[in-house]
Amino acid sequence: MSRDAELKRILVTGGLGYIGSHVVLSLLLSGRYLPVVIDNCHNAFPEAVKRCNEIARDEMGADAPQATFHRADLREPETIEAVFAEYKAAGGIWGVVHLAALKAVGESSELPTQYYKVNVAGSISLLEAMAKNDCNNFVFSSSATVYGTPAVIPIPETSPLQPESVYGRTKAMVEWILQDICRSGTDERPSPLKAVSVRYFNPAGAHPSGKLGEEPRGKPGNLLPLLAQMAVGREKSELKVFGNDYPGSPDGTCVRDYLHIMDLAEGHVLSLDAMAVAESEKNIFSKCDPKKDGFYRAFNLGRGAGQSVLTMIAAMRKASGFEYKYEIVGRRTGDVPDLTANPALAEAELGFLAKRDLEEMCRDLWNFQTKNPNGYEQTA
Amino acid sequence: MSRDAELKRILVTGGLGYIGSHVVLSLLLSGRYLPVVIDNCHNAFPEAVKRCNEIARDEMGADAPQATFHRADLREPETIEAVFAEYKAAGGIWGVVHLAALKAVGESSELPTQYYKVNVAGSISLLEAMAKNDCNNFVFSSSATVYGTPAVIPIPETSPLQPESVYGRTKAMVEWILQDICRSGTDERPSPLKAVSVRYFNPAGAHPSGKLGEEPRGKPGNLLPLLAQMAVGREKSELKVFGNDYPGSPDGTCVRDYLHIMDLAEGHVLSLDAMAVAESEKNIFSKCDPKKDGFYRAFNLGRGAGQSVLTMIAAMRKASGFEYKYEIVGRRTGDVPDLTANPALAEAELGFLAKRDLEEMCRDLWNFQTKNPNGYEQTA
Ligand SMILES: NC(=O)c1ccc[n+]([C@@H]2O[C@H](COP(=O)([O-])OP(=O)(O)OC[C@H]3O[C@@H](n4cnc5c(N)ncnc54)[C@H](O)[C@@H]3O)[C@@H](O)[C@H]2O)c1
Ligand SMILES: NC(=O)c1ccc[n+]([C@@H]2O[C@H](COP(=O)([O-])OP(=O)(O)OC[C@H]3O[C@@H](n4cnc5c(N)ncnc54)[C@H](O)[C@@H]3O)[C@@H](O)[C@H]2O)c1
Repeated sequence: MSRDAELKRILVTGGLGYIGSHVVLSLLLSGRYLPVVIDNCHNAFPEAVKRCNEIARDEMGADAPQATFHRADLREPETIEAVFAEYKAAGGIWGVVHLAALKAVGESSELPTQYYKVNVAGSISLLEAMAKNDCNNFVFSSSATVYGTPAVIPIPETSPLQPESVYGRTKAMVEWILQDICRSGTDERPSPLKAVSVRYFNPAGAHPSGKLGEEPRGKPGNLLPLLAQMAVGREKSELKVFGNDYPGSPDGTCVRDYLHIMDLAEGHVLSLDAMAVAESEKNIFSKCDPKKDGFYRAFNLGRGAGQSVLTMIAAMRKASGFEYKYEIVGRRTGDVPDLTANPALAEAELGFLAKRDLEEMCRDLWNFQTKNPNGYEQTA
Repeated sequence: MSRDAELKRILVTGGLGYIGSHVVLSLLLSGRYLPVVIDNCHNAFPEAVKRCNEIARDEMGADAPQATFHRADLREPETIEAVFAEYKAAGGIWGVVHLAALKAVGESSELPTQYYKVNVAGSISLLEAMAKNDCNNFVFSSSATVYGTPAVIPIPETSPLQPESVYGRTKAMVEWILQDICRSGTDERPSPLKAVSVRYFNPAGAHPSGKLGEEPRGKPGNLLPLLAQMAVGREKSELKVFGNDYPGSPDGTCVRDYLHIMDLAEGHVLSLDAMAVAESEKNIFSKCDPKKDGFYRAFNLGRGAGQSVLTMIAAMRKASGFEYKYEIVGRRTGDVPDLTANPALAEAELGFLAKRDLEEMCRDLWNFQTKNPNGYEQTA
C-alpha cells in the first residue's frame, strides 16, 4: 500500500449509499484519491464498501487502493471529528464529498425537523469540522430540485433557486451557506474554502460488474429501481404513472434527465481534479470575484436529454423482458413537468460528459438486479 | 410562590441579552407567565436576571414570580434537553421565546459558519427538543433585515424575504424552517407546532427604573447605545455617520424605525397571549390553511415612524446634554436607506401598539446609562 501516500485522502459522507458507493469506486479507480467513507447506515449497508474494494482489486490488481469505512453520524459532530483526528498524523483529509442526507421528497414534508437536522445542521457541523482540520475542498451533492419549476428548459445553472419542497429547501440552504462561507473573511484573510455544488439530475443504472448498485433499505422511491424490483419479482405493488397531460412531453408523462450512475460518479472525480489545479494556473475559480462569489461554483450533472416516464418503462421492458402493467392516475402534487439539464457548463469547465446511454443504464441496472435479487445482505 | 403553579412556564433563550432581559421582565410583570432563562453568557451577564426579579418584586411585592437562570448553549443540545427535563415533573414548559443568536451583521460575513451554527443549527436543535417534550408554542426573534432592500415603505409583512447579509439569511432560514415544520405532518396528524415570527425594527431605550438596559460585552454595535456610552464618557471613539445622500430621508441619512424596548418586550407577551387562545375560538391562526401555511404567522414589531440618524443624534443630545461631534463619511456597504415598518397587522391581530415615543426612549436610555456608567458587572 506504499503508493497510498501519494493519493489524496477524500472523506465521502454517505459513501455507502447509491451514489456515494459509486463515487467511492470511481475515486479508487482514478488512482488519484483514497476514499474514507462515513455513514450511519440509515439507508445503506457496510457491504457496499467491501464491494467497491473488491471491484478495485478486480480491475487494478492486488495492490489497488482500498476504501475504509467508519460508522459516524452527521447529527453527532464528535463522531465526525474523530475521523478527522484519526487521519491527522497520516497526512489528513484533503477534501470532502458530502453525500449523506435524507432524500425522500414526500417524507421531507412529514418530517421536516429531521430533514433540516441531518441535511442542514449536519452540513454545518461538517463544515465546522473541516475548518478546524484545515480541510478546504468540498464537493456537495445538490439536486435539480433546487430549481423548483424552472422557466427555461434545458435548465442552465443561472436559473434561480426556488425549491418547492422541504427536501429541496434543505439543499438550497446548504448551497447558500457554502457560498457565504466561500466569500467570507477579510481581504487579508479570505476564506480558504473551495466548494463545488453538483446538481444531480436523475442517476440510474449500476456498475457494469453487477456487484454494485442501488440497494436502499425499504421500498425504492425512484422509478428505475422500482421497475427493476418489479421485474425480478421483489416488489409486488402496482405501477402508477402520475399524469399524462403534461404539455411539452412526447406522451404527456413527466420528463426527467437520466444519466448513468458511473457518469455521475465520475463527475465527482472531475470536480476534485478541478479543485486540485494550482491557484496560479487557470482553474474553475479563476473568474470568481473573491468578495462576491468566493471560490464557489455550481454545476449541473445531467445528460441534457429528457426522457418521459413511458419511455423509461419501455426501456426497462426491453432490458428485462418484463411486461409492465401500469395505470395512469392523476398528477401528483409537487411533480415538475420537465427537469432536463443544460450540461454545457460542466462539459466546458469540468470536462464532464455523460456518455452512457439509456440502454446501457437499463442493461446495467438489470444486470445488478438479477445478480442481487434480494440485495446485498442476502448475498454477502 | 403558590400562584406560580397557575403561570405558564416560558423558556426564554438569550434571556440575559438586551431584548431577552426586557422580555423576561414583561413576562414577570404580566402575571401570566413564568420565565426560565437559558443563555451561554456570550454577550450578556447573569446579573440581568437578578435585576428582572428585583424589578418584579419592586412592582408586584415580595411574592412576585421570579425567573430562573440556566447556563446552556444552543450548540450543545444536551444542555437544552436538560432544562426541559428539569421542569418536566413540575408541569413542563408551555412555550419558548427564542432570542439567543449572534447578531452582528458585519461579523456575520466574517464568521458565517459560527452564525449558521448558532442561529440556524441551534434553532433546529431547539425545535427538536421542543417536539420531544411536547412543547408547541414558539415565538421567534426575527428581524426587519429579512426584507433586504424592500420595494414598499412602510414595509408590510407580505414583502418578500430577500436578506442581503449572512445574519439576515440565518433569520430568513429559520422563518422558512418554522413554516415548513408548522405545515408538516399528515391530515390525520398535523404538526402540533404553533409559531410566530416577530420581525423587530430598531429597539431602543431601557426599563424606566434604570435597573435594566442594554449591556453588551464589548463595543456596542448599534447607534443609540453608542451615543449613550459616548455621552457618559465610556466610549471614546469618533462618531461617524455613513452617508447623507440617501434619497427620501429628511436630511439624507439612513432612516430606521425605533421603538421602545418595553413596547417590543410587551409584543412577546401579546404573541404568547394570542397563541394561548383556544383553537375553538377566533385566533391568529383561524385563517391559516393547515397544509399551505400551518399555524405560522409573522408580524412586524415597529412604530411605523422612521427616524434619520441625525434626528436620533439630536434626540440623544437633548436627553443627555452631550454635544456630539460627528463626521459624515461615505455610505457603508450593506446599509439599506429606509427600514420603516407597517405595523398595522400586529396592531389588528395582536393588539400591539408601540406607544412610547422617541423622547421616552432617549430619556430611559440615558437614565440607565447614568445609573450604570460602567455596566452591570461593576455595580453588582
Ligand atoms: N438519488 C437521486 O436521485 C438524487 C438526486 C439528487 C440529489 N441526490 C443527493 O445525493 C446524495 C446521495 O443520494 P443517494 O441517492 O445515494 O441516497 P442514499 O440514501 O442511497 O445515500 C445517502 C447516504 O447517507 C447516509 N446517511 C443518512 N443520514 C445520515 C447521517 N445522519 N449521518 C451519516 N450518514 C447518513 C445513508 O445511510 C445513505 O448511505 C444525497 O445527498 C441526495 O440528496 C440524490
Ligand atoms: N437588537 C436589535 O436591534 C435586534 C433587531 C432584530 C432582531 N434582533 C434579534 O433579537 C434577538 C436578541 O437580540 P439582542 O439585541 O437582545 O442581542 P443580545 O446579544 O443582547 O442577546 C442575545 C443573547 O443570546 C445569547 N447567546 C448567544 N449565543 C448563544 C448560544 N449559542 N447559546 C445560548 N445563548 C446564546 C447571548 O449571550 C445574549 O445574551 C437576537 O435573536 C437578535 O438577532 C435584535
